[in-house]
Amino acid sequence: MTRTRLEAFSDGVIAILITIMVLELKVPHGADWQALRPLIPVFLAYVLSFIFLGIYWNNHHHMLHATERINGAILWANLHLLFWLSLVPFGTGWIGENHVAPLPTALYGVVLLMAAIAYTILQTTIVAHQGPNSKLREAVGGDLKGKISIVLYVAAIPLAYVKPWIAIGLYVFVALLWLVPDRRIESRIDR
Amino acid sequence: MTRTRLEAFSDGVIAILITIMVLELKVPHGADWQALRPLIPVFLAYVLSFIFLGIYWNNHHHMLHATERINGAILWANLHLLFWLSLVPFGTGWIGENHVAPLPTALYGVVLLMAAIAYTILQTTIVAHQGPNSKLREAVGGDLKGKISIVLYVAAIPLAYVKPWIAIGLYVFVALLWLVPDRRIESRIDR
Amino acid sequence: MTRTRLEAFSDGVIAILITIMVLELKVPHGADWQALRPLIPVFLAYVLSFIFLGIYWNNHHHMLHATERINGAILWANLHLLFWLSLVPFGTGWIGENHVAPLPTALYGVVLLMAAIAYTILQTTIVAHQGPNSKLREAVGGDLKGKISIVLYVAAIPLAYVKPWIAIGLYVFVALLWLVPDRRIESRIDR
Amino acid sequence: MTRTRLEAFSDGVIAILITIMVLELKVPHGADWQALRPLIPVFLAYVLSFIFLGIYWNNHHHMLHATERINGAILWANLHLLFWLSLVPFGTGWIGENHVAPLPTALYGVVLLMAAIAYTILQTTIVAHQGPNSKLREAVGGDLKGKISIVLYVAAIPLAYVKPWIAIGLYVFVALLWLVPDRRIESRIDR
Repeated sequence: MTRTRLEAFSDGVIAILITIMVLELKVPHGADWQALRPLIPVFLAYVLSFIFLGIYWNNHHHMLHATERINGAILWANLHLLFWLSLVPFGTGWIGENHVAPLPTALYGVVLLMAAIAYTILQTTIVAHQGPNSKLREAVGGDLKGKISIVLYVAAIPLAYVKPWIAIGLYVFVALLWLVPDRRIESRIDR
Repeated sequence: MTRTRLEAFSDGVIAILITIMVLELKVPHGADWQALRPLIPVFLAYVLSFIFLGIYWNNHHHMLHATERINGAILWANLHLLFWLSLVPFGTGWIGENHVAPLPTALYGVVLLMAAIAYTILQTTIVAHQGPNSKLREAVGGDLKGKISIVLYVAAIPLAYVKPWIAIGLYVFVALLWLVPDRRIESRIDR
Repeated sequence: MTRTRLEAFSDGVIAILITIMVLELKVPHGADWQALRPLIPVFLAYVLSFIFLGIYWNNHHHMLHATERINGAILWANLHLLFWLSLVPFGTGWIGENHVAPLPTALYGVVLLMAAIAYTILQTTIVAHQGPNSKLREAVGGDLKGKISIVLYVAAIPLAYVKPWIAIGLYVFVALLWLVPDRRIESRIDR
Repeated sequence: MTRTRLEAFSDGVIAILITIMVLELKVPHGADWQALRPLIPVFLAYVLSFIFLGIYWNNHHHMLHATERINGAILWANLHLLFWLSLVPFGTGWIGENHVAPLPTALYGVVLLMAAIAYTILQTTIVAHQGPNSKLREAVGGDLKGKISIVLYVAAIPLAYVKPWIAIGLYVFVALLWLVPDRRIESRIDR
């Protein structure tokens, strides 16, 4: 079984998620700056979520590139990842709607955390399927970035109740961590 | 004629359906747990429907993998299946909106039943097109799971009027039945 | 230049159109038959439009199958077709919302007419690009079905003001005319 | 790494953007011309944005056709372009909602300007990756059209405050400039 259709389906879902988020930017009735102001937090939340979905698409792209064969477990681990990603637009909309209140900010972190765990499960499933000489395992190594991200999300969720902006700061930091494309996999494959 | 474009189109439709369902999770105006509570049934209905659409995508993937040539009848049998699947988001939203009332729960069963019948029709159409030595027919065998699902949906629809949760229990049972990927087809093809 | 990306983009747009129409089926607040009744015309309009978009996708599939090379004119003729198809959900929603009133019924006919004309333009552009030995021209022949459809749409638009159901009857008739897949092209290509 | 998945993802996003814009054409409650009239500016804004997204898809198609290898920088430059394109539906809806008021018209120009800049960045990134004998650089040449477009957008934004229709006129002019497909690239590649 090839990986092509899995990629196409995942691309479709991520492409739709990244674009339906923009529907949360409701067209205001007024035509002045006053009408635009309440949209600013929604817009910033949109930018952050766009970057997160972009990172997932990018890394997903690299991970599947190191994957030749797909089985049922990989298909479902992938759907599980897409499920959590599908909640990103909801989390984004709720943060934006409430100008970064504690609960929405924490819930956004829960969605990001679950997506990160789902990504790790998918990676582990592929490595297990590839066996001892897994090209992906070699490329991923200790997966330090993945582990740091999960730790930071776990820290951010309670911190959202102390001060939401600390949590947001941690989310932005994780995004910056990943914005550098995963050269580990890239370099191994290009070799 | 190849099956590639049929797969791509079906993937597109299923990817869109699985993601527009999340639009039913309307962003609440409040920022506390109270605001989130009415969304719980909508969320659970979303999880169930996500799994059902995932199962259909997964099985559709396997079925078409055992299909080389496409004709007009297969194209329309496939569109017929996509039509019933396209009503899943509506059924999901109506169950969630009314906290599992009898009629929405029964209607959700009708949509699942029609989709199951449409899937069987598509399978039969492909087998008929492949002729006596059909690789798919051999793989599907007596299609016991498909028949059990249809019987359970038919039972669930009136039972939704007795107690909606019995019907929901049956839908969850059918989902679990299918969550195990269809190893019959998988094993025949990999051989 | 290959036709693959043109097909993929058209598939994407048609898949999205066919599924966002279902968003017009707004989830009702009540949970009884009374709540469902106003949705019946919207549902029937959805069924008709689903079939029309299915026909376009199907024929588009056949037409591009007989097309090897794409140029700028074909790209824009294709986008022109997609533009008119993109108005089908609006037309569908307006008919459903107003229980088959004259103006919405006539406007729906205008959208179908413009899409039919756009399809003919796309066909002509491809034939012109293929030159005198066009495989598509040979397959399409006199394009009788296309011409009949355009005549029936032109007749249906004013008839919607006499009695909307006459126009609807004509739209259904055109759909039935096309539901038979275009064996002319299919047979020529399979040969 | 191949360009196929980048194309597929971009096609998906642009296909979704071009179709969700039509959701701004809200189905009116009345069934007469009066009900349709407020939709006319929304419709015209839709037509203009459809053409702009069509142009971007078309040129993106040509540009990637002259690109064999993709790296991380190209992936992100492409996502950056998609980000600005994703704001086109919002800009379109806001112009339509307010019948071409100054601020929405200027903001629409800002979105177009940022998309044009993002397109130039993507082009430059690809050319840099291809090295001194870049096929794309040779094809693009001085990129006169791209430079004129950016100048006209920069002029249109303040002019929207003088008279919105002047800005709209400039946007239409830029669209016409690009509607002629980019024969420079096309001819070089076909050679």
